[in-house]
Amino acid sequence: MVKKLIELAKLVNSDFDGNEEVEITGVANLEDAKPGDITFLADARQLALLDTTKASAVIVPKKVKDAPLPILKVNDPYLAIAIVHNLFATRPFVASGQHPKAVVGNNCQISSEISIGPMAVIGDRVIIGDRVIIHPGVVIGDDVEIGDDTVLHANVIIGHGCKLANRIIIHPGTVVGADGFGYAADQYGHHIKRPQVGFVQIDDDVEIGANACVDRATFGYTWIKRGCKLDNLVQIAHNAIIGEDSIIVSQAGVAGSTILGTGVILGGQVGVSGHLSIGDRVMVGAKSGIHSSLPDNEVVSGYPAFSHKLWLRACAVIPRLPELFKDVRKLKRHYKEQEKS
Amino acid sequence: MVKKLIELAKLVNSDFDGNEEVEITGVANLEDAKPGDITFLADARQLALLDTTKASAVIVPKKVKDAPLPILKVNDPYLAIAIVHNLFATRPFVASGQHPKAVVGNNCQISSEISIGPMAVIGDRVIIGDRVIIHPGVVIGDDVEIGDDTVLHANVIIGHGCKLANRIIIHPGTVVGADGFGYAADQYGHHIKRPQVGFVQIDDDVEIGANACVDRATFGYTWIKRGCKLDNLVQIAHNAIIGEDSIIVSQAGVAGSTILGTGVILGGQVGVSGHLSIGDRVMVGAKSGIHSSLPDNEVVSGYPAFSHKLWLRACAVIPRLPELFKDVRKLKRHYKEQEKS
Amino acid sequence: MVKKLIELAKLVNSDFDGNEEVEITGVANLEDAKPGDITFLADARQLALLDTTKASAVIVPKKVKDAPLPILKVNDPYLAIAIVHNLFATRPFVASGQHPKAVVGNNCQISSEISIGPMAVIGDRVIIGDRVIIHPGVVIGDDVEIGDDTVLHANVIIGHGCKLANRIIIHPGTVVGADGFGYAADQYGHHIKRPQVGFVQIDDDVEIGANACVDRATFGYTWIKRGCKLDNLVQIAHNAIIGEDSIIVSQAGVAGSTILGTGVILGGQVGVSGHLSIGDRVMVGAKSGIHSSLPDNEVVSGYPAFSHKLWLRACAVIPRLPELFKDVRKLKRHYKEQEKS
Repeated sequence: MVKKLIELAKLVNSDFDGNEEVEITGVANLEDAKPGDITFLADARQLALLDTTKASAVIVPKKVKDAPLPILKVNDPYLAIAIVHNLFATRPFVASGQHPKAVVGNNCQISSEISIGPMAVIGDRVIIGDRVIIHPGVVIGDDVEIGDDTVLHANVIIGHGCKLANRIIIHPGTVVGADGFGYAADQYGHHIKRPQVGFVQIDDDVEIGANACVDRATFGYTWIKRGCKLDNLVQIAHNAIIGEDSIIVSQAGVAGSTILGTGVILGGQVGVSGHLSIGDRVMVGAKSGIHSSLPDNEVVSGYPAFSHKLWLRACAVIPRLPELFKDVRKLKRHYKEQEKS
Repeated sequence: MVKKLIELAKLVNSDFDGNEEVEITGVANLEDAKPGDITFLADARQLALLDTTKASAVIVPKKVKDAPLPILKVNDPYLAIAIVHNLFATRPFVASGQHPKAVVGNNCQISSEISIGPMAVIGDRVIIGDRVIIHPGVVIGDDVEIGDDTVLHANVIIGHGCKLANRIIIHPGTVVGADGFGYAADQYGHHIKRPQVGFVQIDDDVEIGANACVDRATFGYTWIKRGCKLDNLVQIAHNAIIGEDSIIVSQAGVAGSTILGTGVILGGQVGVSGHLSIGDRVMVGAKSGIHSSLPDNEVVSGYPAFSHKLWLRACAVIPRLPELFKDVRKLKRHYKEQEKS
Repeated sequence: MVKKLIELAKLVNSDFDGNEEVEITGVANLEDAKPGDITFLADARQLALLDTTKASAVIVPKKVKDAPLPILKVNDPYLAIAIVHNLFATRPFVASGQHPKAVVGNNCQISSEISIGPMAVIGDRVIIGDRVIIHPGVVIGDDVEIGDDTVLHANVIIGHGCKLANRIIIHPGTVVGADGFGYAADQYGHHIKRPQVGFVQIDDDVEIGANACVDRATFGYTWIKRGCKLDNLVQIAHNAIIGEDSIIVSQAGVAGSTILGTGVILGGQVGVSGHLSIGDRVMVGAKSGIHSSLPDNEVVSGYPAFSHKLWLRACAVIPRLPELFKDVRKLKRHYKEQEKS
């Protein structure tokens, strides 16, 4: 693929400021870029890095005035390079059909525009849309529905009855629709399994990392809404609802029946208790634990979490606690001596 | 399946208080219930919810006096609905036999009452009991023993020599019997692997979630005792012993050679260090870290963990630490001024 | 295999102190050892345990003077038993070839000394060296390179273009080369995926546990250097570099572009933020969180982490915070009363 720089400038709404005829054939980072590549500079203070790059053009923050090579000035170089890179990296779908070593059940409705890899196993009454890629070793249960342009990477498991919409990407080893973790204790302390008869619904444009888990609901459905991005090893428990465009970083977990609003961000290794309601655009610092519901726009950290700003200040005191403790003991002694005298 | 309400009342030891002839055909939650369904009310204070349900009967706590539809009064509605739901949800086992695209090794003893899915791979000298379901993509190593009525979901891996008893459920992607994590450092700081020649033993009625790990022992065996329930992404290290009826919530981990007593509950994301002994019925709050052994019946939180009640009070002070620090500084200054004067 | 005790003494540089002609046929722990086994005693204070073992010889710490059976005195019994056990446990490689139910792509260069299990799927242009074992259900993408003597356990996934060196062990379910977690938010708060076009490089003698994740780089490569040992459920994000001989315990995570030095140890459930530089031989206590770069040889704990020794002392104060808070309030009241009077 070859694109003129002027075309890319239009694509990213750039103040164009270079040679209109420069031809771009790929995307790379600053160090590895070859002639023909476009690259990007995230931070205007690192302008010196441009002196040594071999790229043919560079996307820069608006505040950059001048550079030794053609530049595209944008508000957000990360966003601009993502848009440009997707243009170059996206390859047209080529249907390879169903591999002879895949197994497909009965009464399925599967588009002819499909790629099903070897060792994939698809159950009965499964519906799959156009341009879907089922990688090797994927297992899809009975009565699953999958929309268009979805990619299931190797060894992904989609449990029976789950519903996946369009343009979803699920990375290897992830399990959608295992039973929720629900028991009732009897008089002997034995745990009686509560049947988990719901399903998982995943909306458009969701991406889920590798070896993650999204459990089916006890009743009804666990719901990952449009545009959510879940990282590797994330746990979403039964009946949770993850609001649109939310981000959940690696190894974080959301317990049962908790509802996250739109645009929530959970840092890595965060835990959120069950039956909570987390407002829109809430941000939770890495490793924090959420024990109570939160209104919109809160930024919290710690366990139990509170204001992130206050948390930073509280953390600064923690290493001084031994000293603080000694000081208070001394003060108490002084006070007692004063009392006596 | 159709059951008279009187039959269900007997099943759950209910004070029956309704129309004996009501026929129940299924179980649902309050909102989704249709005529013919039985549902449940967990909390007597939410009695108003019964006005709108379309269910034909409802399981309620004993303190509920009256309701607009037939009720079964019980001590624990969660337990009662679990028992009733299992009655309706459990389907009789139908042996589908060994799928032609499964691979089974030599000298195995496998019941004829079995379902082995496509792409499953079973090693040599494997023993499998009656009514076992091996889902697609499961890999079972040599010399594994599996009892009756056990279900291994898709892509589960059981390493060589592991022993699984009866009525065990293991959810997709879980790995039982990978090597324990054991090394010895040589004079150059290189880590020499210690061979892990033990196995994993899992007793009756254990359920393990998706993408969890139970490592084989260095010598001897790692042991998950009867009735334990392990959630998704849980880690059990080599030579750990998990006592009967213990509950381990998602993303928690138990390090090597640690012994948990009977009925222990570990909250989500808890970590327990190695070589500890945790008493019966110990409860550990979510995200806590256990560094030392604990006697029976302890309820702890924090890291390192201490009394849960005290932890709640200590946590309330954390956001006030900056203020506390300032106060102490002021008091010290006052004291110094007093000293001078 | 039969070895004379004198041979084992030489292997572990032992001061030999027993019957030269004793024949050893296996390795076991103290309790389970049978005649013919060699075992070990880690702690000289537990010498009494030797009275009941049935082993034919025992490896002991140097400070042990005398014992009721032949002994090998060494500096580090853990290391010595690991070396001896590897001698007995290592079996010669036997090539089983490519199973007829495996699928191998086009233009691959695969050694004839290979074992490829059933249901394994190997892409195009893959290069695999000598004595490699590919277990059932493994999926290897296009253009992957694998060196000699490497073992990929069941259902492991190696993404396209990744490079694995020699003597690597990867346990079941682990995913190497899933996309890194990188997005740029557009004006509507939608997350635009940044293409992840790099790969993963794993050097000699690395071992990775079960259900772990090592993401491919955005550009360039994520790099696990020689001799690293990663436990189950560990997360390594895109472009991270893990220094030689580092140890990462279960459920820990390293965020994007962070560089770990040589011989770093991360405890279980540790989290390390992105874009940091962690010095050689840094040790991080379990469950800690690292927010800033660290120089060589630091030993830290807590979140945010600081000196481990200081952390231990600070933790001792945490349960006393409610009391401390009350004391300070009292002191403030006293001071105010003094002021008045």
